[in-house]
Amino acid sequence: MIRRLCIVGTGLIGGSLARDLRRLGAVDEVVGSSRCATNLERAVELGIIDRFDTDPGRAAAGADMVVVAVPLGATEMVLERVRDTVEDDAIITDVGSAKGSVVAAARASLGARLTRFVPGHPVAGTEHHGVDSSIERLFERRRVILTPIEETEVTALERVSAMWRMVGAEVVEMDVAHHDEILAATSHLPHMLAYTLVSMLGGMKDRPEIFGYSAGGLRDFTRVASSDPQMWHDICFANRAAMMGVIDRFRSELDQLAEAVRRGDSEYVYAVFTRSKAIRDRYS
Amino acid sequence: MIRRLCIVGTGLIGGSLARDLRRLGAVDEVVGSSRCATNLERAVELGIIDRFDTDPGRAAAGADMVVVAVPLGATEMVLERVRDTVEDDAIITDVGSAKGSVVAAARASLGARLTRFVPGHPVAGTEHHGVDSSIERLFERRRVILTPIEETEVTALERVSAMWRMVGAEVVEMDVAHHDEILAATSHLPHMLAYTLVSMLGGMKDRPEIFGYSAGGLRDFTRVASSDPQMWHDICFANRAAMMGVIDRFRSELDQLAEAVRRGDSEYVYAVFTRSKAIRDRYS
Repeated sequence: MIRRLCIVGTGLIGGSLARDLRRLGAVDEVVGSSRCATNLERAVELGIIDRFDTDPGRAAAGADMVVVAVPLGATEMVLERVRDTVEDDAIITDVGSAKGSVVAAARASLGARLTRFVPGHPVAGTEHHGVDSSIERLFERRRVILTPIEETEVTALERVSAMWRMVGAEVVEMDVAHHDEILAATSHLPHMLAYTLVSMLGGMKDRPEIFGYSAGGLRDFTRVASSDPQMWHDICFANRAAMMGVIDRFRSELDQLAEAVRRGDSEYVYAVFTRSKAIRDRYS
Repeated sequence: MIRRLCIVGTGLIGGSLARDLRRLGAVDEVVGSSRCATNLERAVELGIIDRFDTDPGRAAAGADMVVVAVPLGATEMVLERVRDTVEDDAIITDVGSAKGSVVAAARASLGARLTRFVPGHPVAGTEHHGVDSSIERLFERRRVILTPIEETEVTALERVSAMWRMVGAEVVEMDVAHHDEILAATSHLPHMLAYTLVSMLGGMKDRPEIFGYSAGGLRDFTRVASSDPQMWHDICFANRAAMMGVIDRFRSELDQLAEAVRRGDSEYVYAVFTRSKAIRDRYS
């Protein structure tokens, strides 16, 4: 049971979590914070939060649970602000898509509160963003990855885990670096490829025609390129090392495929496609 | 009105077209052909074709309309076989995803019948294949691109166009080379990227975990990697020149993005993402 929940960043993820916790009666009061007052007023209108403050420190005053759901680049600033105003035994957690940079920010800013900080990442969402995109049951049957560090208290980890399980998520624990590698490969790289493809197609001279003649394949493929640019900009830099690794690896595989097509290596091309299809069919 | 329709390649596209033409009473008899007798027996069972012959020449005997719906690599062989058995004023058309190679195959094989050959490409389909994946109304509100050549008779073009409009498609005409460039960019390249990504992820040591932790983004992104390997193998080589061009272009844009992330060029990365999102939101 949460007494006063502070959601810093009342967008798709923060808003959806607040909706579910309220619906389930798991929270007494929800205070929102965001850079944008209009967004916060909308969140009050929608009944997602009770009140708000654009200053995260004031919003978190007296909270026993703080969920930081802002673009990664704003994490450290938010942690610094909430550190001194939350309740003494308050728990702070986040929802960032990369964890190494979040842990570094927490170490740099939280001081003694580091033991009650739980780095987390709900692997859920859509290409939309903002509080109007928040929905109920977004986390049902989705995985939430928690990446506790050495200093993390077991009781803090358990409370955050319980909160996510309550909204229907399957909670798993993972090492920080391992999380960042897995997500670089499965999420960050595909986003880079989609943004790059749309940017490239958009730069071609037959642009309206190009998008007009695209069948469902391209629409699916580029859906993630509609995601929030600020959020993905921040993820790029927050998870730079792991992402550079997977981009290099991808480029090398694409080069090999292109080279095989160029030299007419029918067997190689057929083998790559057959293997990929088998893997895709097996895991999806 | 078609008297005897011969569908060579009774898979997703050929089977779906036959289903619709029968449903609409636009055809008296449908004869199927395919390398695989089991597939053909299944097509008879499903009521999609009346009878079949694994030899395309015998299957096309006396047909007034032949639709070639085989992987691109088999097109020339099929055209050679059907050339001598169809009715005198029969029309032959195809559904291949690349048109330059089809036109070359038609020129090499059809002789005097070239004037009644109409190169075509329904921009429709799913990642599934085979006659069991064929469905009614697959072409409704989808574009069918016809790429007539200098020799194409207007009456032949009109009959093929009428057939596609009858099943609900919007028919457009396009130059052969232009078709191949547009499709390389919007369809062939995304397929290469998806196959490459799945192949790369499949080669990583944490493979089951990688696919387990993937959210909807990866599933959408890699859906096309479940497509028929033979079909896509053939498209690669059939449209090699245009595809090499777009792969090079993509690689260069990806390199620029990676380099910007590497050197910490926040503005460049944010600009690419913002621009891509605007384009994606506008055209989808």
